[in-house]
Amino acid sequence: MIRVGVNGYGTIGKRVADAVATQPDMELVGVTKTKPNYEAEAAIRQGYDLYAAISDRAAAFDDAGVGIAGTLTDLLDSVDVIVDCTPSGIGARNRSIYAARDTPAIFQGGEDADVADASFNARTSFEAGREADSLRVVSCNTTGLARLLAPLEETYGIEKARVTLVRRGGDPSETERGPINDVVPDPTTVPSHHGPDVNTVLPGVAVDTAALKAPVTTMHTHSVNVTLRETPTTEAVRELLAGESRIFQIPEAAGIDGAGKLKEYAMDRGRPRGDLWENCVWEESINVSGRDLYLFENVHQEADVVPENVDAIRALTTDLSASESVERTDEALGVGL
Amino acid sequence: MIRVGVNGYGTIGKRVADAVATQPDMELVGVTKTKPNYEAEAAIRQGYDLYAAISDRAAAFDDAGVGIAGTLTDLLDSVDVIVDCTPSGIGARNRSIYAARDTPAIFQGGEDADVADASFNARTSFEAGREADSLRVVSCNTTGLARLLAPLEETYGIEKARVTLVRRGGDPSETERGPINDVVPDPTTVPSHHGPDVNTVLPGVAVDTAALKAPVTTMHTHSVNVTLRETPTTEAVRELLAGESRIFQIPEAAGIDGAGKLKEYAMDRGRPRGDLWENCVWEESINVSGRDLYLFENVHQEADVVPENVDAIRALTTDLSASESVERTDEALGVGL
Amino acid sequence: MIRVGVNGYGTIGKRVADAVATQPDMELVGVTKTKPNYEAEAAIRQGYDLYAAISDRAAAFDDAGVGIAGTLTDLLDSVDVIVDCTPSGIGARNRSIYAARDTPAIFQGGEDADVADASFNARTSFEAGREADSLRVVSCNTTGLARLLAPLEETYGIEKARVTLVRRGGDPSETERGPINDVVPDPTTVPSHHGPDVNTVLPGVAVDTAALKAPVTTMHTHSVNVTLRETPTTEAVRELLAGESRIFQIPEAAGIDGAGKLKEYAMDRGRPRGDLWENCVWEESINVSGRDLYLFENVHQEADVVPENVDAIRALTTDLSASESVERTDEALGVGL
Amino acid sequence: MIRVGVNGYGTIGKRVADAVATQPDMELVGVTKTKPNYEAEAAIRQGYDLYAAISDRAAAFDDAGVGIAGTLTDLLDSVDVIVDCTPSGIGARNRSIYAARDTPAIFQGGEDADVADASFNARTSFEAGREADSLRVVSCNTTGLARLLAPLEETYGIEKARVTLVRRGGDPSETERGPINDVVPDPTTVPSHHGPDVNTVLPGVAVDTAALKAPVTTMHTHSVNVTLRETPTTEAVRELLAGESRIFQIPEAAGIDGAGKLKEYAMDRGRPRGDLWENCVWEESINVSGRDLYLFENVHQEADVVPENVDAIRALTTDLSASESVERTDEALGVGL
Ligand SMILES: NC(=O)c1ccc[n+]([C@@H]2O[C@H](COP(=O)([O-])OP(=O)(O)OC[C@H]3O[C@@H](n4cnc5c(N)ncnc54)[C@H](O)[C@@H]3O)[C@@H](O)[C@H]2O)c1
Ligand SMILES: NC(=O)c1ccc[n+]([C@@H]2O[C@H](COP(=O)([O-])OP(=O)(O)OC[C@H]3O[C@@H](n4cnc5c(N)ncnc54)[C@H](O)[C@@H]3O)[C@@H](O)[C@H]2O)c1
Ligand SMILES: NC(=O)c1ccc[n+]([C@@H]2O[C@H](COP(=O)([O-])OP(=O)(O)OC[C@H]3O[C@@H](n4cnc5c(N)ncnc54)[C@H](O)[C@@H]3O)[C@@H](O)[C@H]2O)c1
Ligand SMILES: NC(=O)c1ccc[n+]([C@@H]2O[C@H](COP(=O)([O-])OP(=O)(O)OC[C@H]3O[C@@H](n4cnc5c(N)ncnc54)[C@H](O)[C@@H]3O)[C@@H](O)[C@H]2O)c1
Repeated sequence: MIRVGVNGYGTIGKRVADAVATQPDMELVGVTKTKPNYEAEAAIRQGYDLYAAISDRAAAFDDAGVGIAGTLTDLLDSVDVIVDCTPSGIGARNRSIYAARDTPAIFQGGEDADVADASFNARTSFEAGREADSLRVVSCNTTGLARLLAPLEETYGIEKARVTLVRRGGDPSETERGPINDVVPDPTTVPSHHGPDVNTVLPGVAVDTAALKAPVTTMHTHSVNVTLRETPTTEAVRELLAGESRIFQIPEAAGIDGAGKLKEYAMDRGRPRGDLWENCVWEESINVSGRDLYLFENVHQEADVVPENVDAIRALTTDLSASESVERTDEALGVGL
Repeated sequence: MIRVGVNGYGTIGKRVADAVATQPDMELVGVTKTKPNYEAEAAIRQGYDLYAAISDRAAAFDDAGVGIAGTLTDLLDSVDVIVDCTPSGIGARNRSIYAARDTPAIFQGGEDADVADASFNARTSFEAGREADSLRVVSCNTTGLARLLAPLEETYGIEKARVTLVRRGGDPSETERGPINDVVPDPTTVPSHHGPDVNTVLPGVAVDTAALKAPVTTMHTHSVNVTLRETPTTEAVRELLAGESRIFQIPEAAGIDGAGKLKEYAMDRGRPRGDLWENCVWEESINVSGRDLYLFENVHQEADVVPENVDAIRALTTDLSASESVERTDEALGVGL
Repeated sequence: MIRVGVNGYGTIGKRVADAVATQPDMELVGVTKTKPNYEAEAAIRQGYDLYAAISDRAAAFDDAGVGIAGTLTDLLDSVDVIVDCTPSGIGARNRSIYAARDTPAIFQGGEDADVADASFNARTSFEAGREADSLRVVSCNTTGLARLLAPLEETYGIEKARVTLVRRGGDPSETERGPINDVVPDPTTVPSHHGPDVNTVLPGVAVDTAALKAPVTTMHTHSVNVTLRETPTTEAVRELLAGESRIFQIPEAAGIDGAGKLKEYAMDRGRPRGDLWENCVWEESINVSGRDLYLFENVHQEADVVPENVDAIRALTTDLSASESVERTDEALGVGL
Repeated sequence: MIRVGVNGYGTIGKRVADAVATQPDMELVGVTKTKPNYEAEAAIRQGYDLYAAISDRAAAFDDAGVGIAGTLTDLLDSVDVIVDCTPSGIGARNRSIYAARDTPAIFQGGEDADVADASFNARTSFEAGREADSLRVVSCNTTGLARLLAPLEETYGIEKARVTLVRRGGDPSETERGPINDVVPDPTTVPSHHGPDVNTVLPGVAVDTAALKAPVTTMHTHSVNVTLRETPTTEAVRELLAGESRIFQIPEAAGIDGAGKLKEYAMDRGRPRGDLWENCVWEESINVSGRDLYLFENVHQEADVVPENVDAIRALTTDLSASESVERTDEALGVGL
C-alpha cells in the first residue's frame, strides 16, 4: 500500500483525497487544512484524518471542536508521498519542507515548472516520474490539451495547433472572483503561456494558445484547430479520439449543448461532485477539412487533473507501466462515460 | 410495497425517481421520457425501466437503440401512484389520463392549485392527502416558505411575513434562460402570487411576497422578515428552527458565504447531485429586534420538493402519520446536515 | 462662480466633474488622476485640466505624453471647494490635507460618517451644509432610500420601513469583481449598516435593511416595504412620488422590465453615459394594502449621487435654499424623465 | 438631400436613425414602431416622425397618446430609400412591400444573403451598391471580420484565417436571453456560417470560424489567427491596422482590459449610447510569429454596422466613391478614437 498524504484540502485536494481513497493499492493517511471551516468538518465526517497545515493554528481546530490528528510534519512522517494541493505559489514555498524530510512530492499546475524534477501527464510523460523525486501535474487546461494533442501527434503528426481557451472566471465556490458581464483577454498577449506549458509534457509539438476569461464557473471551453501533417477523414479522427480512455466524445444524439447539461449528465451518471475527469469533446464539432481539424472541447477544471495525480503517485513510487497505472486508476475511479 | 411511476424524467422527475428508489416501502416501477436523449440513456444505466411518454414517439427510442419497456399507459397500469413531473401546464393536460384509469396522481408546483384535490407540504398539510385522490406538491419557493413559517406561526404567531424572493433565472442545464446581467422584477406587481400559494398549504398566515429574477442557476435566495405576535430572543428562534428536520442552519463558523459554497458543502457531504433537500438558513442572519424577525435563507430549487413528493406518495396511499412518513423519508434519503 | 476641483477622476469623479461643468454658477478648475490611463487621456480631450493626485507620480504623466497642470496641492490652491471622489478609505486619509489648507471638502459615501462635519442629501438634509466645512454625500443606496422615504415620512408617517437591497457586484468596468453565478448575503447579518446610514440624513425614521450582492453591473434593485402610519390609496402614493423631481416613475405602458431596458431608455433620451440620476420606481409595483406599501425601485449606483454632489457644493458655499439649488442643478443637468 | 426612412426602430434602427440625422446630405423622414412603448416615446422626444409599422395597430398609438405621422406605406411614399431594421426574418417578408413601390431598400445581417441584390460592407464591397436596388449590410460579426481581413489580404495575402467568435448572449435590454453561467457552442458544428458570410463581401479569402455564446451583453470577442502569405513584422501589422479608419487599436498604456472598460472609454469620449463603431483591437495582442498573425478584437454588436448602413445608403443612391462616402460618414458621426 502506498501511503499518501494531501496537503491543502481545497478544490483539488479534496478530489485527490477521494480518488486516492478508492485506489486498491493506496492508503489515504490524512489531509491538511489551515482552518476549521466547512471543508474541515466534511473531511472528518468523510472519515479522513485531519492535520493542521500550519502548526500555529492547531489550537483553532480545538477551539472549534474539530479534532485533528497532528500537524503537517506528523503527516509527512507517515506517508510515502505527499500531494501538495495548496494555492498557486504556496507549493513552491512548501518544497523545502518536503525535501528536508526526503518526502517525495507532487505539486499542481499553479506552480512554475521548476518546482519539481519533472512535469507530468499520464498520457504523455508517465516515464518522467521514474527518476524523479518530485512531479508537477500540469494544469487543467494543459492536461486537457496534452490528452487531445498526443494521439493526433502520434497518428497524423501536428504541423501546428491553435487553440482559444475560454476559461472559467472562478470555481463555483469562489464568490469573490469575476468578471461579471465581460469576456476578458487574459493574458492580453497572444500566444499565452499555455502553449509552452503543454510542451513541458509534450515536447516538440507546435501549439499556440490564446486565453480569455468568461463569467462562468462550470468548465473551460477550448476552441481547437490543429493543422495536421496528413489528411484523415473526419470519421477517422472521431474514431481515434473515441479510443482514448480519458476523452469523452459527447454523442450528437445526447442533446447536450453546453457545460450545464454536461455536468447534469455527470450527475445523472452518479459521478461524485458531478466530476468530469475526461476531456469532453463535442462529436458534432469534430471536423476535418483538408489538413485542418476543428473541434470544441470542454474541460472540467476541478476534475481532469485528479486521475493524473493518482497516476503521478504511482509513477513516483512504483514500477508499474503507464498503461497499468491508468487502467487501475480508471477502473477504481470509474473513468469513462 | 407502494408501486410508483414517474411521468416526466427531467430536473424534478429524476430526483423523485432516485428518492423513491431509496425508500424501503416503495418500488420504482419506471419513468417516462419524451425523447431518447442523454437523460434517457442515463436512466437506463441507472437501472430504471423507461417508458415512452408519448406513444407516437416510441419508435424514436428504438431508432436510437434505447430500449423501452412500454408507453405511459403501460406504466399507469402497473403503479399505485403516478408522480407527474412534466413541465408546467402539461400536468393539467395529463390529469384526465390519470383519472380515466383511477390512478392516484401527484402533480408539481408549476400547475395551478386546482389541478389536484389538495395542495401538499409534509410539514403543514400532510393530512390533506388522506381524502384526496390527487395532490399537488407546492413549488420550491412555496415549500421553503411553508417549512419556515409553520414553526414560527405555531410557536409565536405570525402577524405578517414579508419576503423578497430573489429567484434563479433557470436551472443549470437550461441554457436558453436569462436574464444576463439584470435583476428583473418578475412579476413586476407586488405582492406576487407566492404568498397566496403558501396559503394553499398554510392557510390563514399573512404573507406578502415580492419576486425578482437574477442571473444565477444555483439556488433561490429569500430575504425574510416576519413580524411575530411575541418577542422571542434571537437565540430562541435559532433553537426553534434548529429543531426542524428540513431546515439546515448554516453555522457561522462554517465560512459558507453563498450558494456556491453551500453546494460545495453538499458535495463534500456526498449528497447525490449536490442536492440540498433542506432550507438553508444563515445562522448569523437570524435576528430578532422587537417583534421583527429577519433572516436569509437559500432554497435549492431542484431539490427541496423531493422529500415532499415522497411524503405525498405515502399521504395518498398509506395510513402513516406525517411524522412517521417524514422520518422514514429523511432516514432513507439522508436528510439532515 | 464657485471654483470646484475633483480629486479622484473615477466612476463618481468623472460624473461630478461633468455635472459641475454644466452648472452656470460653477467652474470646474481641474481634476486629479493617479496615473495616465485612458481616463486621464479622455479628461484632457474633454478639455479638463489634469493634476497629478500624487506628486511623486507626476513624471509618469510626462513620460506618457499626458500634459498636467500641476499636482493636487496646486489644485487645492485654486478652488473654493474640493470634491473628494477617491476610493473608500482614501478620503479619510486626504481629510487632513484639505483641512491644512482650509479647503472646504465634500466626501463620498464610501467614507465613514465621521469623515465630515455632516452627512448630506439634498432632499432631506440640505441645511446640514450651512454650518459645515465638510460634507459627506451619502452612498448610492442611502441616497436612493432617503429620496424615497422622505416624502412618505412627511406625508403619512413611517412606522417602519423594511428594504432588501439587491446590490450590483461591481461597476461595468470592474472586471475583477464577482460574484459569478451567486447571490451573496453581504453582510450576512441583518439588518445591514444601510439603515443606520439612512438615519445620518433622515434621522428618526425606522428602517431595517437586508443586503445581497448579485452578478450584475448595471443597477441596484430595492425591494421596499413601508408600513405607514396612515392608509393612503395606491393612487395617492403614486401621485405623491410623481411629485418628486428625483424619482422617475416607470410607466407601466413603457414596457421596461429591468435595468437593461431602463438604461436603454436613458440612452434613448440622450443621457450622457446612460446615466439615471433619478430613483427608478416601477409604477406597476407600487401597491398599498392596509398600511403596507410595497414597491420595487432601481438605483443607478454610478449616477444618483451626482446631482447630490452638485447641491452639496452649493450648500457648503452659498446661501441658496435647498429648492433653489435643486432646481438649478436639475435644470442644468437635465434631471427629470 | 437623400430622404431616408427606418423601418423597425429597435437596437439597430434607432442607431441608424440617429446616424442618418447627423449626415449633411441626408434627411431622416421618419421611423416605424409596432407598438407605443418607451422607444416610441423616446423617438418622438428625439423629434423623429413616427409611423405605425403595422397599419392595424395604428390605433394603439392613439390610445397611448403617442402621435403618429402615418403608417409604413405613407413613409415609403416619402423616402428615397428605406432601411429595414426589423428582426431577423421579418426583412425577407417586407421585401415585396418595398419592391411593390420601387423603394430601394437596405436590409440587415439577420436576413439571408438572397434578401437583397448584394451584400454590403463599405471597406470591401462598396461598389456592389452601384447596380443594386437593394443591399444587405452584413452582420456585426461579419462586418468586423471584413474590416480586419481586407487590409491583411490586400497587403500580405491571406492563406487562411481561423477565428473563434465568443458572441454575446443577448443585447443589454434582452432580458429573456441566456445563457446564464455557460459558454455554449453555437452552432456546435465547426466551421460556422460566419466564414461563408464574410465571403459575401470579401470573396476568395479562406476564413474558418468557430462560434460560442457567452453570458455577456456588452460585445463580441474575436480570437483571431491569420496565416499570411508573407512574414511582416508585428510592428508593420500594427501600423497597417492603425491606418484603417474603422479600426481602433487599444493602446497598451490605456489600461483597458475588457469590454467594460472599452465601453467606459467610449462614454468618457462622449459617444452617444457608448457606441463603438470601430473594431477594437488590443494593440498588445497583435503578434506575428512566422506567417502567423494573432490578435484579439472586440466588436460592439449594436454599433459597428451603423456607419456601414449610412454608406450603404449612399452606395444605393449616389455616385460618390467609397472613400468619399466613408469620409463623410466618419466625419459627421465622429468615427475614430
Ligand atoms: N481549481 C482549479 O480549477 C485548478 C485546476 C487545476 C489545478 N489547480 C491548481 O491546484 C492547486 C490548488 O488549487 P485549488 O483550486 O484546489 O485551490 P483552493 O484554494 O481551492 O484550495 C487550496 C487549499 O489549500 C489550503 N491552504 C492554503 N494555504 C495553505 C498552506 N500554507 N498549507 C496547506 N494548505 C494551505 C487552503 O485552505 C485550501 O483548502 C493550485 O496550484 C492550482 O493552480 C487548480
Ligand atoms: N426545476 C425547478 O426548479 C422546479 C422546482 C420545483 C417544482 N418544479 C415543477 O416541477 C415540474 C417539472 O419541472 P422540471 O423543472 O423538472 O421540468 P424539466 O423540463 O426539467 O423536466 C420535465 C420533463 O418532462 C418531460 N416531458 C415534457 N412533456 C412531457 C409529456 N407530455 N409527458 C411526459 N413527459 C414530458 C420532459 O422531456 C422533461 O424530461 C413543473 O411543474 C415545475 O414547475 C420545478
Ligand atoms: N461606484 C459606485 O457605485 C459608487 C456609488 C456611490 C458612491 N461611491 C463612492 O464614491 C467614492 C469613489 O468611488 P468610485 O466608484 O468612483 O471609485 P473609482 O475607483 O471608480 O474611482 C476612484 C478614483 O480615485 C483615484 N484615486 C485612487 N487613489 C487616489 C488618491 N490617493 N488620490 C486621488 N485619487 C485617487 C483612482 O485612480 C480613481 O480614478 C467611494 O467613496 C465610493 O464608495 C461609489
Ligand atoms: N442587435 C444586434 O446585435 C445586431 C447586430 C447587427 C445586425 N443585427 C440585425 O439587425 C436586425 C434588427 O435587429 P435588432 O437587434 O435591431 O432587433 P430589435 O428587436 O432590437 O429591433 C427590431 C425592431 O423592429 C420592430 N419590428 C418588429 N416587427 C416589425 C415589423 N413587422 N415591421 C416593422 N418593425 C418591426 C421591433 O418592434 C423592434 O423595434 C436583424 O436583422 C439583426 O440580425 C442586429
